[in-house]
Amino acid sequence: MHPSERRYVITFGCPDRTGIVARIAGFIAEEGGWIVEAAYHTDPDTGWFFTRQEVRADSLPYDVDELRERFGPVAESLGADEDVEGGAGGLHWRIDDTGTRRRVVVLVSKEGHCLYDLLGRVAAGELDVDVSAVIGNHDVLADVTRAHGIPFHHVPFGTDAASKAEAFARVAEITDAADPHAIVLARFMQILPEHLCHAWTGRAINIHHSFLPSFVGAKPYHQAHVRGVKLVGATCHYVTAELDAGPIIEQDVIRVDHGDSIPDMVRKGRDIEKVVLARGLRWHLENRVLVHAGRTVVF
Amino acid sequence: MHPSERRYVITFGCPDRTGIVARIAGFIAEEGGWIVEAAYHTDPDTGWFFTRQEVRADSLPYDVDELRERFGPVAESLGADEDVEGGAGGLHWRIDDTGTRRRVVVLVSKEGHCLYDLLGRVAAGELDVDVSAVIGNHDVLADVTRAHGIPFHHVPFGTDAASKAEAFARVAEITDAADPHAIVLARFMQILPEHLCHAWTGRAINIHHSFLPSFVGAKPYHQAHVRGVKLVGATCHYVTAELDAGPIIEQDVIRVDHGDSIPDMVRKGRDIEKVVLARGLRWHLENRVLVHAGRTVVF
Amino acid sequence: MHPSERRYVITFGCPDRTGIVARIAGFIAEEGGWIVEAAYHTDPDTGWFFTRQEVRADSLPYDVDELRERFGPVAESLGADEDVEGGAGGLHWRIDDTGTRRRVVVLVSKEGHCLYDLLGRVAAGELDVDVSAVIGNHDVLADVTRAHGIPFHHVPFGTDAASKAEAFARVAEITDAADPHAIVLARFMQILPEHLCHAWTGRAINIHHSFLPSFVGAKPYHQAHVRGVKLVGATCHYVTAELDAGPIIEQDVIRVDHGDSIPDMVRKGRDIEKVVLARGLRWHLENRVLVHAGRTVVF
Amino acid sequence: MHPSERRYVITFGCPDRTGIVARIAGFIAEEGGWIVEAAYHTDPDTGWFFTRQEVRADSLPYDVDELRERFGPVAESLGADEDVEGGAGGLHWRIDDTGTRRRVVVLVSKEGHCLYDLLGRVAAGELDVDVSAVIGNHDVLADVTRAHGIPFHHVPFGTDAASKAEAFARVAEITDAADPHAIVLARFMQILPEHLCHAWTGRAINIHHSFLPSFVGAKPYHQAHVRGVKLVGATCHYVTAELDAGPIIEQDVIRVDHGDSIPDMVRKGRDIEKVVLARGLRWHLENRVLVHAGRTVVF
Repeated sequence: MHPSERRYVITFGCPDRTGIVARIAGFIAEEGGWIVEAAYHTDPDTGWFFTRQEVRADSLPYDVDELRERFGPVAESLGADEDVEGGAGGLHWRIDDTGTRRRVVVLVSKEGHCLYDLLGRVAAGELDVDVSAVIGNHDVLADVTRAHGIPFHHVPFGTDAASKAEAFARVAEITDAADPHAIVLARFMQILPEHLCHAWTGRAINIHHSFLPSFVGAKPYHQAHVRGVKLVGATCHYVTAELDAGPIIEQDVIRVDHGDSIPDMVRKGRDIEKVVLARGLRWHLENRVLVHAGRTVVF
Repeated sequence: MHPSERRYVITFGCPDRTGIVARIAGFIAEEGGWIVEAAYHTDPDTGWFFTRQEVRADSLPYDVDELRERFGPVAESLGADEDVEGGAGGLHWRIDDTGTRRRVVVLVSKEGHCLYDLLGRVAAGELDVDVSAVIGNHDVLADVTRAHGIPFHHVPFGTDAASKAEAFARVAEITDAADPHAIVLARFMQILPEHLCHAWTGRAINIHHSFLPSFVGAKPYHQAHVRGVKLVGATCHYVTAELDAGPIIEQDVIRVDHGDSIPDMVRKGRDIEKVVLARGLRWHLENRVLVHAGRTVVF
Repeated sequence: MHPSERRYVITFGCPDRTGIVARIAGFIAEEGGWIVEAAYHTDPDTGWFFTRQEVRADSLPYDVDELRERFGPVAESLGADEDVEGGAGGLHWRIDDTGTRRRVVVLVSKEGHCLYDLLGRVAAGELDVDVSAVIGNHDVLADVTRAHGIPFHHVPFGTDAASKAEAFARVAEITDAADPHAIVLARFMQILPEHLCHAWTGRAINIHHSFLPSFVGAKPYHQAHVRGVKLVGATCHYVTAELDAGPIIEQDVIRVDHGDSIPDMVRKGRDIEKVVLARGLRWHLENRVLVHAGRTVVF
Repeated sequence: MHPSERRYVITFGCPDRTGIVARIAGFIAEEGGWIVEAAYHTDPDTGWFFTRQEVRADSLPYDVDELRERFGPVAESLGADEDVEGGAGGLHWRIDDTGTRRRVVVLVSKEGHCLYDLLGRVAAGELDVDVSAVIGNHDVLADVTRAHGIPFHHVPFGTDAASKAEAFARVAEITDAADPHAIVLARFMQILPEHLCHAWTGRAINIHHSFLPSFVGAKPYHQAHVRGVKLVGATCHYVTAELDAGPIIEQDVIRVDHGDSIPDMVRKGRDIEKVVLARGLRWHLENRVLVHAGRTVVF
């Protein structure tokens, strides 16, 4: 990354009132900061205000820690607490340095299309992240993962509660060792236990192969086929303890018709799953996704 | 309509077996019929075969009644019963003459966008039908309807069961007098009683303002907003006794984001409602929609 | 309009530098203004900065003229000249009051679908404008226009230069009498003379029935059919002296296939023309479209 | 492939006349063939008729050579010549056996996204082909290709005519040795010489990163940015001697806005390039694409 491309990204949310934009923009201007991208949103339902600001790092004479320290009183005066966990889930405010490379852990099962797509994007230089680890409850995706120079961990899952708990403990151990910015459930077929949903709030991202809230749970393409829908979809969302009910980051659909069998729908749907997941992950890693009241603001 | 544009449209469904295409195409060829459009579909789930054939009327030396009489034994030999009701709901086979102008009755309430869109399409010559009547449980759409030279019937609905039944009896009377090919519920806010769902099977078409099966019932845009979806949709479907559960003819979606209030979603959704209804109605009137096992084949 | 829904809309463009957001937001905050929507954009190619701010009118103790007067020195200090013409074409800055109802003049020929769509949106209360006049070089659309209570002016166009010039003089006279915020060429088949392109810069909006820059000029659907494209499109753009080359406000496409004849493409394309024009016009009337260097910023 | 999934695919085109469907369907029925998919199209512009039929291989008591021999006289009687070259380019008729595994050669340069996408689809079992070889004029994509177990050939291209000719001779040698069903130009940055366009007619498939006919030639995203379009597209087409003018197999678009820089457009466009190429290639390999008069019929 060229120094001129390095950014400090400020995300911020608080109850709306007049003068917030002036206060934040004024602070940045006083510090000499050069804003290269700015977005604002007020949610009339909840009365909350949200903003995201990208400041050129080289326009400020100090580092991100100093910026956080100086911005703290501004945020406090506006009623926002620092989001020390850093998760988009409990947004108040945070500042991230794009000079810190993003780390991602990917959880998979047997279906490779989302993983291959992510690896291809990393290899093509389009998704600028470190894939710290891929963890599979099966090992069929090990070879291609390793061919990309990425560690693959096979963690078999039993069917009884005890062995599942043990497997998830191992998954958590490997994942947490990487301290990832995102944990991607790339068609991982196991339901995260509640304690991991909480521990990874705002960082665990799932791709569900339907246009939620349609077709929650297992075999959504089968459900879609039975209902005779004319479009199938995919939904990228944050993982919460309630299955397939987390805040939605991105969705898209693709047309199907009576001539499409379930395998056809599965195949066509994959193209949407891949792109919806890739968009959602990118936006998350760029701190574009703010969560409030179970919904997302995507700047 | 120029004589060379007049068609006999054959739709046909029966359990699949070898030789059906040859039998039907052979019959048409023997009669000297010129097929201008032909479509086939076999549903592997139900083992049923469907076809739709358009034959130039001027390629046959007799009229549609004679064609029906000659085709009867062919259909019978393949195991299909004539669909005397003529509804797409109970498809076996039918033959329609495009020289008979289609009649449509439209049921409305206060929201005019779908009605205005249909009237505009008729006025522009794009939808070649007679709108026999528009029936409203309110009268706010009377003036524009009448400006298009179309009768508007105001049938007020009470809130108790008896007055609703009386109102529906009046709606049925006006509707049945027109013997329409389609009864369009263009944002009609009353739920059809079961006996009318049955009487109008395969002819009553509803536009629902969500991507079904998401957000069944009232206020789907509000439901969508609460869930934080990134696309809103519309569904055109045949009316059945189970609310919003009839065979789906067409669906489409439009993108929304966190900046869209519920009124914004309502407004954007209307553009999809209009076009989805217009497409579904056109396909129905062209005998392109075949219903079997609760789903549609759209040729 | 409820007083709380009235807005002062500030649009602003100038060469980028640090502190612009702070300066503008600071000014609004000092005046006590309540910003309900704000958008910013910096174009790295041209080095220009753009913003659009919606302020609640009832949050300021004075009217829009006073706001303009006070804002003037702020804008001047940032290097922007007031855009006295008010056109989006020559943007520097302007402030509009949404309490002033928008006026629109529509130019048509024989094809009614875009006009009917606009009239339907006005009748449904979705497009909150006064259609001051509809002017047609043919009179086939007169009846429906008048049924909506809107004056229709038939201005026949001859084929020689002199009679065309005379007809355009009449069109300009009727149009300018209404002092409209937008002049909509709703499938108007005459090419505006250069002096009207200049006089109406930033206010004359055309709908072209192709995905520009494909298929400039006449009969774009025919051109599309010959080339065998798989999507047809529509483009809403500001009119400039160079044919079909003005700044693009909005575009969309719809899928076609080998089974679609040219009339099918025309029919399908209309659904896109209508919605693209309606979106573009709405954005224009809401002062969301800023023009610079031949391209638009749509906030 | 399970024997019951093996198909003989008949594609056929001839000047339209009555009785063609009956003749072909009758032939198949007499032979005892079980048609699992059938499509027909008549092009009113050219007066040509096209069909594609999938017959279960296990429903016929003989092999594909025998079927070709028996079908020959039927086709001849209808005026179609056997398409011995087998290319979709010069369609008359052909019969292919899906039991013969498809072979593909991919030509690349430095940009890997389309190649990675194809390799991912093959690895995921979604695209059931043998990638016989990948040929690059640079070697940056060699490692990932070989990690998938596929031979990578680096054929450097000079800048003078002689060295280009030499390089193309080597490309042709490697390609022709594989006798591929498709030669995919997956963002290959060299223009095929005319003799290879001819030799590979109907088999060479290119992905162009614009919505053709917009932005022919080099740097289409730059051209799109300058014009300020609101959608960018991709086009999959057969290669012909005229640059970017071959028959279009598939197209799609994705929305961009004023906030998208050229690199953003490049990145977003890639998602469309990949999916458009994958669809086009699949349809080609399934013999769904028939070419006539410079346009495609895609069944």
